[in-house]
Amino acid sequence: MSLWEKNIRQVAPYVPGEQPNQPDMVKLNTNENPYPPAPRVAELAASFPADTLRLYPDPTCSTLVEALAKRYQVGADQVFVGVGSDDVLATAFMTFFNGTEPIVFPDITYSFYDVWADLFRIPYRKLALDDAFHINPRDYDAPNGGVIFPNPNAPTGIQEKKEVLEDILQHNQDVIVIIDEAYIDFAEETSALQLLGKYENLLVVQTFSKSRSMAGMRIGFAIGSSKLIKAMQDVKYSYNSYTMNAASLYMGAAAVEDEAYFQETVEKIRQTREEAKMRLAELGFTFPDSQTNFLFAAPSRIDAKELFEQLRARNIYVRYFNQPRTCDYLRITIGTPEEMERLYQAIAEIQR
Amino acid sequence: MSLWEKNIRQVAPYVPGEQPNQPDMVKLNTNENPYPPAPRVAELAASFPADTLRLYPDPTCSTLVEALAKRYQVGADQVFVGVGSDDVLATAFMTFFNGTEPIVFPDITYSFYDVWADLFRIPYRKLALDDAFHINPRDYDAPNGGVIFPNPNAPTGIQEKKEVLEDILQHNQDVIVIIDEAYIDFAEETSALQLLGKYENLLVVQTFSKSRSMAGMRIGFAIGSSKLIKAMQDVKYSYNSYTMNAASLYMGAAAVEDEAYFQETVEKIRQTREEAKMRLAELGFTFPDSQTNFLFAAPSRIDAKELFEQLRARNIYVRYFNQPRTCDYLRITIGTPEEMERLYQAIAEIQR
Repeated sequence: MSLWEKNIRQVAPYVPGEQPNQPDMVKLNTNENPYPPAPRVAELAASFPADTLRLYPDPTCSTLVEALAKRYQVGADQVFVGVGSDDVLATAFMTFFNGTEPIVFPDITYSFYDVWADLFRIPYRKLALDDAFHINPRDYDAPNGGVIFPNPNAPTGIQEKKEVLEDILQHNQDVIVIIDEAYIDFAEETSALQLLGKYENLLVVQTFSKSRSMAGMRIGFAIGSSKLIKAMQDVKYSYNSYTMNAASLYMGAAAVEDEAYFQETVEKIRQTREEAKMRLAELGFTFPDSQTNFLFAAPSRIDAKELFEQLRARNIYVRYFNQPRTCDYLRITIGTPEEMERLYQAIAEIQR
Repeated sequence: MSLWEKNIRQVAPYVPGEQPNQPDMVKLNTNENPYPPAPRVAELAASFPADTLRLYPDPTCSTLVEALAKRYQVGADQVFVGVGSDDVLATAFMTFFNGTEPIVFPDITYSFYDVWADLFRIPYRKLALDDAFHINPRDYDAPNGGVIFPNPNAPTGIQEKKEVLEDILQHNQDVIVIIDEAYIDFAEETSALQLLGKYENLLVVQTFSKSRSMAGMRIGFAIGSSKLIKAMQDVKYSYNSYTMNAASLYMGAAAVEDEAYFQETVEKIRQTREEAKMRLAELGFTFPDSQTNFLFAAPSRIDAKELFEQLRARNIYVRYFNQPRTCDYLRITIGTPEEMERLYQAIAEIQR
């Protein structure tokens, strides 16, 4: 090893889900939306003034920030935008988790939390979900350096009720509490945004990658008190003043403004999900009650890994996590009704 | 102060240059390119398949990486791409500068270096340029935790000769040496890329924001040994797997592929720069010999700050740094010949 290698940061990098690109594939492995973005996004793309790309984008991202502030009825100084919710969450980790006490999050959760903690050398402790994959709020009463959890959770799809969130917030008023709502738009219970008025230390993070069909443009956002947002802006301006490109800013704002299309496509996905619950139950699967755009479903007639591989051989991609508490499950993204039909038929054939 | 505020990361955020948007303004303050991106970029924008935005982009960024590898005659495993060179440089700081010795860079240089060092808590030492704003390579002989400098330098515009670079590399083989070549395409001497074969610890960083007219799409890249690039990829995958959006990947690759347009516009800017040297000398300015798309020029007939403000009042924006060794200078981006003519006339009027 060369001497210069000794100061390289040691990380165990996150391995992103595979991004296959096969003709006629059914891609249900990364929780993408099966429907295109709002029609205005395509119009804006077609008329995009490429000449203006010679200029830096607006570092304050005001077009997009103001569209979000209007949609969510908060001040523009309460909105932070970034390159997908991963960028927003990573910035939040760097900004808020600088104590000596460990931060806490569930043992089964978004697999990036411990990766960021390792990257930024933040101590952390994982708190086990109960056997039904629910959070026990009592676990969150001990002193800690911060709290983060997704709601609805991934990959379980379970949403905790507002009382659980408030319980955790009540007992964690001296640290920052981040609720990662990547899947909230598909859920029954409303967003934790309604709690912002009561908790200045609450940060709610959402994304355009699922309900708004814009994973390809990389847009995420956080909403919180102006103090929290200011602290994140300061860190952002110390890292990269221009994270958001001009196209994402304009297209993102357009996507937010088309509320009718948003509601329509989200409702279609919810209906397909409820149908999927029935169909997969008939095929012998068990699963927690998903409030997201995916099902975390355990087959009973075949080994989960075996099914994963056999589906893959048929060009149907779902996600499999080879981990102790999750190895009996597949995470299946909700696609179009037609894609789901192909999935059910393939499972039926494989299980025959 | 609430208790939760105590763990917020303390930073002195970088203040980005103002981004005015006035009708009929002459914007020569942030070193943007006055010409539009390659024509194929506009074509791609117009035909961009917005439907595909529902999918995550390729996390390996292969379209863009391969276009760059071909253009610069290196392996695809030697290319890292990011959200502007700021993202690439910040990732490099996080990846490579983890020692206890201070990293070193010039006292007059890109103003983000100390901001990143502060953000990531990296010790650093600034080494004074000589009175003619040149690097003394002997200053770089002492033990350090890494070396970074821009070449050509900003805001001076000065390019150090290849012998100086080799001298510094010869004496710093146990640390990573980053040469930030944001302005290299406008320079006489060729890129440090030619030294990559000799120094596995050399990282060369470039950007699409200047010579390739794509500041608005946020694309930067680094080229180095596959070991360095792998280490940066690992950190990237620990931060945000999908930093590059689908549009930037395709448009960026198209911009790289149009070599003729690139050479033509770069040559136009070089010619305008040489003309500007004559015209500003006639107006009483002195300046180092710029090898970039800007001039770092000191007026002799008026105070620099006064001139900055008077130009601003006429809707002509240049950059002024109110710092000890740079407060007598303006940094003037090279615009179109027409924009420069407006600048010369305004200066003549103000000085009359």
